[in-house]
Amino acid sequence: MPYKVTYFNVTALAEPIRFLLSYLNEDFEDNRFERELWPTLKPNMPFGKVPIVEIDGKVLNQSTAITRYLAKKAGLAGKDDWESLLIDISVDNIHDLRQALASYSYDPDEESKQKKYDPLIKETIPFYMKKFESIVTENNGYFVNGKLSWADLFFVSIMDYLNYMAGFDLLKEYPKLQALKASVVAIPQIKAWIAKRPNTI
Amino acid sequence: MPYKVTYFNVTALAEPIRFLLSYLNEDFEDNRFERELWPTLKPNMPFGKVPIVEIDGKVLNQSTAITRYLAKKAGLAGKDDWESLLIDISVDNIHDLRQALASYSYDPDEESKQKKYDPLIKETIPFYMKKFESIVTENNGYFVNGKLSWADLFFVSIMDYLNYMAGFDLLKEYPKLQALKASVVAIPQIKAWIAKRPNTI
Repeated sequence: MPYKVTYFNVTALAEPIRFLLSYLNEDFEDNRFERELWPTLKPNMPFGKVPIVEIDGKVLNQSTAITRYLAKKAGLAGKDDWESLLIDISVDNIHDLRQALASYSYDPDEESKQKKYDPLIKETIPFYMKKFESIVTENNGYFVNGKLSWADLFFVSIMDYLNYMAGFDLLKEYPKLQALKASVVAIPQIKAWIAKRPNTI
Repeated sequence: MPYKVTYFNVTALAEPIRFLLSYLNEDFEDNRFERELWPTLKPNMPFGKVPIVEIDGKVLNQSTAITRYLAKKAGLAGKDDWESLLIDISVDNIHDLRQALASYSYDPDEESKQKKYDPLIKETIPFYMKKFESIVTENNGYFVNGKLSWADLFFVSIMDYLNYMAGFDLLKEYPKLQALKASVVAIPQIKAWIAKRPNTI
């Protein structure tokens, strides 16, 4: 197997990579470790973080860069530099929502965390979700360029993680985004991956 | 002028774009606004953030996606998908350091902010800077692929901003990174840009 994905036993930041490898019909080693092993593993990671992916023995970090690379192989990265630009913008807009959720969810200071809750739930989440719903409505049911791209796979692959951090189903008021999710999880390779993957957040 | 860059009157996240446009010898409108105007401007931004860039009248956000697009035009994005991947990884590693600095620098909760100071100064900054110094040493004086790429321009373009957030010169103990900075700011188009740009953080 030329690909080995190493991460915690969750979807989160490794799932875009797992989605793309599945989409490509690549047989990959899905190497998951339990949280208590992390302090032992961390010093061996290229930048002290996971996921990492080994491609032909070369160890790589940075999940979004790796996902983009796989998306090019899959023909999901745009037909030219302009389309690729618009896809990259969509992905980074989704990352901004993810980071707002993570900034709340991982805040170790309880008082600071509580201060973030109301703006997150009442402002940030509705702001992004309404924008995304409107963008997908205008783009033929996809995030960008009127067709399937890795921005769609990226979004759907991290939804469980985003919902976990938010504490509720972010898609519940957004029918176009629900339809996008349904169409992505119906792609045969993605459907097969979801059926066989471990049942985790 | 086909390019218009809109941002606060600082280097920070717009400077990679300004560096790439300068490198490309593109004449661009450097549209800066003062901080007190931001509440009025924010609702008109595609995702409530800046920088934005207008290219032939189309309004785009997400500075890194835009910088990557310009880097492709400049021949600074790698000779193939593998080189592009390694460049994207380098850029995102630099972003991780930037975000650690920003998480401290922009923390509105004074107590939470103070708790971040020691780990940032004693652990995170030395960790990243030593890694970067070692990577540049192994890559012929550049971040990746043994030659100039947009990862180098990106790093040098945001150094003033990183130093401002850290409160000291991050490069002071790292001669190879200092040499990289010296070589990037000596590129004639970059040198000319730095000479004519507003003198700000």
